[in-house]
Amino acid sequence: MSKNSMFNIVEKDLEDLEEEMLSVIYSPIELITNIGTHLVEAGGKRLRPALYFLAARCKEMEGKNAMPLAVAIEMIHMATLVHDDVIDSAATRRGIATANAKWGNQLSILSGDYLFAKAFSLVAKNGYSGQVMVILSDIICDLSEGEIIQNKETFKASEDKAEYYDRIAKKTANFIAASCQLGGLVTGLNEEEVEALREYGYAIGMAFQITDDILDLTATSAQIGKPAGNDILQGIVTLPVIHALSVSPDAEELRTIVMTRDMDEQMLKRGLEIVHATDAIEYSYAKVQEYLDKARNVLPNSIPEEIRETYVTIAEFIAMREF
Amino acid sequence: MSKNSMFNIVEKDLEDLEEEMLSVIYSPIELITNIGTHLVEAGGKRLRPALYFLAARCKEMEGKNAMPLAVAIEMIHMATLVHDDVIDSAATRRGIATANAKWGNQLSILSGDYLFAKAFSLVAKNGYSGQVMVILSDIICDLSEGEIIQNKETFKASEDKAEYYDRIAKKTANFIAASCQLGGLVTGLNEEEVEALREYGYAIGMAFQITDDILDLTATSAQIGKPAGNDILQGIVTLPVIHALSVSPDAEELRTIVMTRDMDEQMLKRGLEIVHATDAIEYSYAKVQEYLDKARNVLPNSIPEEIRETYVTIAEFIAMREF
Repeated sequence: MSKNSMFNIVEKDLEDLEEEMLSVIYSPIELITNIGTHLVEAGGKRLRPALYFLAARCKEMEGKNAMPLAVAIEMIHMATLVHDDVIDSAATRRGIATANAKWGNQLSILSGDYLFAKAFSLVAKNGYSGQVMVILSDIICDLSEGEIIQNKETFKASEDKAEYYDRIAKKTANFIAASCQLGGLVTGLNEEEVEALREYGYAIGMAFQITDDILDLTATSAQIGKPAGNDILQGIVTLPVIHALSVSPDAEELRTIVMTRDMDEQMLKRGLEIVHATDAIEYSYAKVQEYLDKARNVLPNSIPEEIRETYVTIAEFIAMREF
Repeated sequence: MSKNSMFNIVEKDLEDLEEEMLSVIYSPIELITNIGTHLVEAGGKRLRPALYFLAARCKEMEGKNAMPLAVAIEMIHMATLVHDDVIDSAATRRGIATANAKWGNQLSILSGDYLFAKAFSLVAKNGYSGQVMVILSDIICDLSEGEIIQNKETFKASEDKAEYYDRIAKKTANFIAASCQLGGLVTGLNEEEVEALREYGYAIGMAFQITDDILDLTATSAQIGKPAGNDILQGIVTLPVIHALSVSPDAEELRTIVMTRDMDEQMLKRGLEIVHATDAIEYSYAKVQEYLDKARNVLPNSIPEEIRETYVTIAEFIAMREF
């Protein structure tokens, strides 16, 4: 099953989303419209709105409108990516020039702020509940906390798995959890169902990020658009490396490598070698599998079969992707 | 009347605000608490919360709490200052090291995002109305739009006064207007009174920013902590310069100077000389006076005399300050 057919149920919603985003992003100031349009047209998986719409489609919405919140969710995601690209001095994302590469850091920081504010404005103007606002603002708190923790821990070769899980929850899983939760909330699912969808989102979010961290060590640069071992280069310690640090006979050498700034290719290659000589990849994939099992098992039987199946397929797809 | 006695009525509120901010800023992540504490303790005029509290004190609030929104207002202001300092590569603000000087650009961008999110979270959790949320998010939209316009117009020697007024409204006056408006809203003043307070805030905000722009050309560096003519150095064209460009016999020379990047001291001195040879400063102070007259006249008679007088004093203080 391809990704496209996977999202069949919400295909029309996702098409409308693109149009809505372009209209929300419009500003009388041409430069803002240009930057916003570039960001929207640069695309992305739209994973968060897709998961949100699926939850929202669990019930007829009777005049209530799911769209503005979907736009807000994706705009918050875009805003954080714009700020991340400034922070990482990234020149491209998904093969397309970043805002900072095209317009510089200053305008990119401001555009990110503008997107955050537009997202909240949109939600406030469309009369969603205070709870929705709390969830959205907590997402941004978590995202910035997660990035701050990551920033603080670079080149430190921390071996703390709990710290790793906490960081990827804040960076990725909580946002995906909130996307599912918000869909359930706006469509009026009961409390248990909403909580179950949140847990589903959390679990696939964790699986998604661990897979990402595995692929960073295994995929070729052609596949992921950046050199293998990019996290090691940036001093970011991920689950496979943390595991290797605790089981490898060459752990001390690996620790030195992970703590090295501006390492050469030889050193990176040796680092990857040490990780791959352990069971780090299998260990990490087993964790992915645990989260995916949890995701499948937590889905409530009370939601429409078709949507439940789609959620299951998404969970399967997350572990299967190769880049 | 000194600034301190001016704010007598809300002195206790402003004291409590400091404590509240420190408690809101607290995070289990020590680094975030440290950055937040530094930002709170670096101080500031707290002009926006002061104006907000004055409006909120127009009526007994009967169990409703004005504080969280005051904290949110000041935190949004702080967040924009943190991002501005990154954008301007500023090393100090009010004589104290900026967040970017102490912790670098990356952590500062993230801390600003965190402050925005915390502000919204606080407002959402304390059950303020959707209208309050709309006003707050519009503030951030305006602030980033204003900065984006300013950024786009640097070194362009624009002579458009309407564009200038629009820009300073977005950068300064709308936020101050919203602070007064929000105070009136939460305390339950009637629609006309709230609108009048908003107009008062807008007028003193415009006066405040024009005064700022005048002082940039007249004050010595000892007074304002940066060299006179700093805006010209940065390519930012303000009201006195726009006026000089339209009346000076040396307008062409001034235009060339204003469009020059990395100018030397001699050139800046000549630019200031051309501006001061015109009636630019008087003209601009006359505009300040117009706005302050408007501010005084729009204040409703129905609000408590004591608060009305304080608002009048604040309006007078804004034109009198020398730095």
